[in-house]
Amino acid sequence: MSSSPAETPDHPDLIVLGGGSGGYACALRAAELGLAVTLVEKDKVGGTCLHRGCIPTKAWLHAAEVADTVRESERFGIGAALTGVDVPALRRYADGVVSRLHKGLTGLVRSRRVTVVEGSGELLAPEADGRPGVRVDGRELRASAVVLATGSQPRLVPGLELDDRVLTSDQALRLERLPGSALVLGGGVIGVEFASAWRSLGVEVTVVEALPRLLPAEDPASSAAIERAYRKRGIDVRTGSAMAGLERTADGVRLTLESGQSVEAELLLVAVGRGPVSDGLGYAEAGVALNRGYVETDERLATGVAGVWAVGDLVFGPQLAHRGFAHGIFVAEEVARAAGRDLPAPNPVRDESVPRVTYSSPEVASVGLSEAEARERHGDVRTLTYDLAGNGKSQILRTQGFVKLVALPDGPVVGVHLVGDRVGELISEGQLIVDWAALPGEVADLLHPHPTQSEALGEAHLALAGKPLHAHG
Amino acid sequence: MSSSPAETPDHPDLIVLGGGSGGYACALRAAELGLAVTLVEKDKVGGTCLHRGCIPTKAWLHAAEVADTVRESERFGIGAALTGVDVPALRRYADGVVSRLHKGLTGLVRSRRVTVVEGSGELLAPEADGRPGVRVDGRELRASAVVLATGSQPRLVPGLELDDRVLTSDQALRLERLPGSALVLGGGVIGVEFASAWRSLGVEVTVVEALPRLLPAEDPASSAAIERAYRKRGIDVRTGSAMAGLERTADGVRLTLESGQSVEAELLLVAVGRGPVSDGLGYAEAGVALNRGYVETDERLATGVAGVWAVGDLVFGPQLAHRGFAHGIFVAEEVARAAGRDLPAPNPVRDESVPRVTYSSPEVASVGLSEAEARERHGDVRTLTYDLAGNGKSQILRTQGFVKLVALPDGPVVGVHLVGDRVGELISEGQLIVDWAALPGEVADLLHPHPTQSEALGEAHLALAGKPLHAHG
Repeated sequence: MSSSPAETPDHPDLIVLGGGSGGYACALRAAELGLAVTLVEKDKVGGTCLHRGCIPTKAWLHAAEVADTVRESERFGIGAALTGVDVPALRRYADGVVSRLHKGLTGLVRSRRVTVVEGSGELLAPEADGRPGVRVDGRELRASAVVLATGSQPRLVPGLELDDRVLTSDQALRLERLPGSALVLGGGVIGVEFASAWRSLGVEVTVVEALPRLLPAEDPASSAAIERAYRKRGIDVRTGSAMAGLERTADGVRLTLESGQSVEAELLLVAVGRGPVSDGLGYAEAGVALNRGYVETDERLATGVAGVWAVGDLVFGPQLAHRGFAHGIFVAEEVARAAGRDLPAPNPVRDESVPRVTYSSPEVASVGLSEAEARERHGDVRTLTYDLAGNGKSQILRTQGFVKLVALPDGPVVGVHLVGDRVGELISEGQLIVDWAALPGEVADLLHPHPTQSEALGEAHLALAGKPLHAHG
Repeated sequence: MSSSPAETPDHPDLIVLGGGSGGYACALRAAELGLAVTLVEKDKVGGTCLHRGCIPTKAWLHAAEVADTVRESERFGIGAALTGVDVPALRRYADGVVSRLHKGLTGLVRSRRVTVVEGSGELLAPEADGRPGVRVDGRELRASAVVLATGSQPRLVPGLELDDRVLTSDQALRLERLPGSALVLGGGVIGVEFASAWRSLGVEVTVVEALPRLLPAEDPASSAAIERAYRKRGIDVRTGSAMAGLERTADGVRLTLESGQSVEAELLLVAVGRGPVSDGLGYAEAGVALNRGYVETDERLATGVAGVWAVGDLVFGPQLAHRGFAHGIFVAEEVARAAGRDLPAPNPVRDESVPRVTYSSPEVASVGLSEAEARERHGDVRTLTYDLAGNGKSQILRTQGFVKLVALPDGPVVGVHLVGDRVGELISEGQLIVDWAALPGEVADLLHPHPTQSEALGEAHLALAGKPLHAHG
């Protein structure tokens, strides 16, 4: 296998197919390790996350937070009047954030000498010499390694055509004006985030979810808290409500539920999840095993085809950019090792260690196991819930929520679950705790600054260690 | 030594003198451990932090953040007009937070059966039986242990009388209206926080600091960043400027500097630090050694007098509530062990592990050693600065700042320094990293959720571990 960094772009060491979070992280890390890297991207480097996902949605959610802050300002002694939402200005702000980050990213890609090939790539089976390849708009590239990183896209509901009243998140971020009312089909992360942003921006929102609770991947305590908060915010939450049909009305859409009830609104957001982008890209033809469209890999993200790896949303698991980054870095090191670089074997990315944040108001964040998952795996577990009512900073922010810890009896913390405004920032500490298998007493010994929301994590561990401070013991 | 929890209040196991952060934490933990505890407090349980310190100042700072958000709202597409600051309403909000937390705290104290004695206590030397005591308004209480927790108060400048134009933080929190202009004497944490809040609320602010930089206890990089940010915010920063004199003018005060320059404003906040409250409390008479008013203790917070410990601001070191909490819990366990309880010896609180947050805009937070301190102690060190310009969430919040890591060559991270809005919440993770002596590569392996500000910590560790992701390598 070649390992010369001086190869020409036509003969790189590594071809990465897809320039989203997993793909560009892989390309950047591989280039750092001295490999000649070609990154194939049909649109813009940065992918869904930067252009149509994490970043613009969080910008919308921050604008929504600003609107809520203005609305609530008099409670804090600040006189202010909300005079309206200027959607074009909001989009300019969101686009500005995206374009600054995009500029930074393209600068990085350039400075690390990654060759970007614009176009749609298709995987080619290894040749006789064992080298897989990629065909981009008729041009054939070969390399020692190919990384599949074509990501995911919004799932559609069969029979439901998209138009200006039926949207996915891709179109929702490009609205020119906000509707007076909206239906959100799907109560997962994306649906819950859009519902939050739109409600704060003045839209009447109904969320329809077939499963019995919002955020069904979270601990039920978190689902209950977000549902309570949403009802208080005037969001109509319809859980356990499967869709029976949709019709266009004179001025919007009417969604019929299996219960026979119907809900109307100006538009419908289809937020029923995201599926892998793997069709028509030559994967199966090249011998890559697929399962419901996801690329099958081993724990080290290798596909069954020599020299071909896969990363990010294409690999079944949490569809999160930071998992993509970690996959990309991991695989870049695997490729470099295969190319003869002297590197320690990187640790595989464990999906269980991937922290999850829903950037709604309130936020929901977690890492590790839910209570039910922990019971299923470990039998007896201990849990402790610390109410943010006892947390000074949360009182200052006027937010409600909790820290819920799941631990093994006399053992480490295996799950951290948070609800409350801004708590997404705290789950990184939770990740350290869970990943390093910390005992409650070890965290209890650490000092959390007062008054922060992070203190609530400290207080919860103090209580779990049998020495509650600001908690009823 | 007695250890019966059933003793009458006149003969408790433990008397805690002072009901602030250190004192009440000690009382609560000791009660949990089954000791009969009497807490002597002349004012309200909760002390400076709850009533005149951390909590109300952070409420003011949050109101200030709300004002800034309103002022900036159009950048986010949210139309809003700032119509004024309603100081009585702001104070009602701040008082409301304080009173809710105070109610929770008194409930806790009651539920753990801590006896609160209202009055001014004075330490009494041990009697022949070795039991120290406290005299409260003429009544003598004796116990096996006494914990001194009388805290700190604002330092005054000799010759500078307080009145309605010359205030300390105590009076500043009780202002009925905001001045048009204010001088802040002292560029430490308290001065910098008041300057931030007042500026956001529309006051013309000048900060005068004798030392060459603001926040002189922080890493110089953090000082430089806050000074730059303050200048941009229109705060007049005069560092290296010692006060020569102060005179009252027709409508305010005029402060003369040693340089000969003078600055005028409607009022002056004296924020030259806080000193221990230890005068006239019988400490010296009972044999407790004092140094510039601070109680001298060993590493385990024992004074030289048998059965007498000290906690919190009374012990020289960072004057922070969370240090007080940790001291209180530590000493309660020491007292319980001395009373025969079967407990493992608690780990002493290391001042170096105490995280520090200045809740200004931008916030400044740190834990562990500054670069200079690390060089002095360890010789060669490595540093890495990650600019928040590369951090998506910080871009969304429109905040600037950095993460600066200080590490030993091929060794653990020994200092974490942060600047930026909301970064105070991130320093808890920094504390875990520093306290657990994590190697950069160990933190680099962990997943920080995207897009959060906490990611910047992850990115900084990735870069320090030689595998920068969103950073120029």
